[in-house]
Amino acid sequence: MRRFATETDRVEAFSDGVFAVIITIMVLELRPPNGTSFGALSQSLPALGTYALSFAFIGIYWNNHHHLLRASRGVDGRAMWANLNLLFWLSLIPFSTAWLGANLRASGPTTLYAIVFLLNAIAYTVLQRALLRVNGPETPFAKAVAVDVKGQISLLLYAIAIAVSFFYPFATDALLVTVAVIWFVPDRRFEPLIGIKQ
Amino acid sequence: MRRFATETDRVEAFSDGVFAVIITIMVLELRPPNGTSFGALSQSLPALGTYALSFAFIGIYWNNHHHLLRASRGVDGRAMWANLNLLFWLSLIPFSTAWLGANLRASGPTTLYAIVFLLNAIAYTVLQRALLRVNGPETPFAKAVAVDVKGQISLLLYAIAIAVSFFYPFATDALLVTVAVIWFVPDRRFEPLIGIKQ
Amino acid sequence: MRRFATETDRVEAFSDGVFAVIITIMVLELRPPNGTSFGALSQSLPALGTYALSFAFIGIYWNNHHHLLRASRGVDGRAMWANLNLLFWLSLIPFSTAWLGANLRASGPTTLYAIVFLLNAIAYTVLQRALLRVNGPETPFAKAVAVDVKGQISLLLYAIAIAVSFFYPFATDALLVTVAVIWFVPDRRFEPLIGIKQ
Amino acid sequence: MRRFATETDRVEAFSDGVFAVIITIMVLELRPPNGTSFGALSQSLPALGTYALSFAFIGIYWNNHHHLLRASRGVDGRAMWANLNLLFWLSLIPFSTAWLGANLRASGPTTLYAIVFLLNAIAYTVLQRALLRVNGPETPFAKAVAVDVKGQISLLLYAIAIAVSFFYPFATDALLVTVAVIWFVPDRRFEPLIGIKQ
Repeated sequence: MRRFATETDRVEAFSDGVFAVIITIMVLELRPPNGTSFGALSQSLPALGTYALSFAFIGIYWNNHHHLLRASRGVDGRAMWANLNLLFWLSLIPFSTAWLGANLRASGPTTLYAIVFLLNAIAYTVLQRALLRVNGPETPFAKAVAVDVKGQISLLLYAIAIAVSFFYPFATDALLVTVAVIWFVPDRRFEPLIGIKQ
Repeated sequence: MRRFATETDRVEAFSDGVFAVIITIMVLELRPPNGTSFGALSQSLPALGTYALSFAFIGIYWNNHHHLLRASRGVDGRAMWANLNLLFWLSLIPFSTAWLGANLRASGPTTLYAIVFLLNAIAYTVLQRALLRVNGPETPFAKAVAVDVKGQISLLLYAIAIAVSFFYPFATDALLVTVAVIWFVPDRRFEPLIGIKQ
Repeated sequence: MRRFATETDRVEAFSDGVFAVIITIMVLELRPPNGTSFGALSQSLPALGTYALSFAFIGIYWNNHHHLLRASRGVDGRAMWANLNLLFWLSLIPFSTAWLGANLRASGPTTLYAIVFLLNAIAYTVLQRALLRVNGPETPFAKAVAVDVKGQISLLLYAIAIAVSFFYPFATDALLVTVAVIWFVPDRRFEPLIGIKQ
Repeated sequence: MRRFATETDRVEAFSDGVFAVIITIMVLELRPPNGTSFGALSQSLPALGTYALSFAFIGIYWNNHHHLLRASRGVDGRAMWANLNLLFWLSLIPFSTAWLGANLRASGPTTLYAIVFLLNAIAYTVLQRALLRVNGPETPFAKAVAVDVKGQISLLLYAIAIAVSFFYPFATDALLVTVAVIWFVPDRRFEPLIGIKQ
């Protein structure tokens, strides 16, 4: 039983390393503005705003991923690949962020940005299912993930965000900010399991 | 009770990962000088000096953050977001460092550099308050953070540093170096709690 | 005995840090496309595909490395250097990936890409032997690594992939994808030792 | 007593994170060669060779740092700053490596490269002294660090390497390779303390 915990620990530790690098290297795409007046910073505002939104998303994923793995009684080989798959899609966020940050009003980068988030959400769902297999039905884990209202709403909002990106890129941005706000409240489903109390 | 410790451990571990990446990727902004004479290095001196100061600040934050989390009896959801918020502002240091390093005498980059430090100091205070709620009043943690002279002085010096940056950028640099020196003495408030003795 | 475990833990932790950085910084080579139409993304497809393949390889190495170190009863100085040697060759993957991603049809970058994988496979074998010395013959570890069919097939496929890269670069790509697929099934040799069960 | 161990653990973990990033981001300075023939790789050979030497040095520092902290009974505030100081000088290795890699025959970059290694060696000695204060005289730690032949020889070779760099840059490279070879044999002084046996 302790071996399970240890296995999960290393998967968590490796994932945290990848999360830490992903969330931080995005800042390398924030190029210092041309010019030296404080006003020159306004050139960097689109990139900074996009960076802040992506940072929030990766922070939310880190938080949820952390609760999910903590709540699971272990990982198997399939869950390990599902986890690597999620990390792959997360690692594309700096790429889509850099393109959007340089072209905030454009349709193409906005579409890609929303698609990358949708693919991440799907990868997260796949990981959740893989862990469900490890834990089995009728377990506290199974009950905790059975109701996933926020996850369903997010998938719907991502789909709408992609559709409208072809016509109104800013509506896409607004929808994605909405998803971030929805998730900002921590996922209370797992709290009884992991015993964080105030 | 042990669960708390474990929770805090992972928040610390993830934060340490982000700290490690932030403090290191700044070096990517240090471009090799043009030319191959040893004297060509003088081109890199402003960037090197700014890098050293930012490195010192991030090191100080890492050290204080480490003591703060160690002293706390745990983290809750709110403290987790407060921690991510601090990491966000810390992650902007490489950006402001790169702009200042390339324009050491200019007012705009100096103002931004000081503002980013002020925002980090505020984010740190917010995290400290969130952890105070977790620990409750009348606890050793509450007593340890009750007196925060260095924190208050730093906020004052940051405010002055921002104000003078419009007129005398080098005075701003001097004030920020002063803040770093003040903090270089480790924060003894938490030492009895964490039991580092020589 | 516990000391052994602890030693191995830190080697694992450091290696995981390097794995996490290697797997993530490759994304910095994915430059945002010129232009803002969604179709402009097609410029990035070769780089994205190469990135995905390299990500899969590093993920496979992480997974196998993790099982290998877990199964070993400890590390000695020689194994530590063998591990650093493996990390060195792994760290060249972003370099070979960047060159191939920018020149997918060209022979030179394809040859280098396959050679780097071959050198990694050799470094992994050297590490495996160093750990075999630590564990000694007739141990569960020795039995687990005695049969290494996948490793042998991979070495053969890498050699063929290098040979054909001079004439048919895409055949090389196909062979390397084949190796990745072969390894995608987790290495069951160590599973009884580390006790991951579903 | 356990608290000491825990403190040291986090300092080690943070340092390992910084080591992992430093050793890996250097690879970002390895630009893909212009051209797509395999022969075009020869342009990258100076940068690759310099990278390999720097990788070896950082690996040696990681290994020795690991043994040093393991052997110490704890860390205090002074040792924490001495450790950050070492990490600062280590973090300049990618900078000096990039400059030398692009100008292998030039005197200036060679001088800087050797100076950065000398400053690292001094910072390591300072850390060793700070830890000596924590452990006290007549302890196993004090006896282990009392004889530091390799450290003394290295300091001497660095000094000579800097002096000759103004006239024969390649002699400097040869001396630095010699230092690396000397250290490649793991530091046996601490082995009885940490109990790595084969």
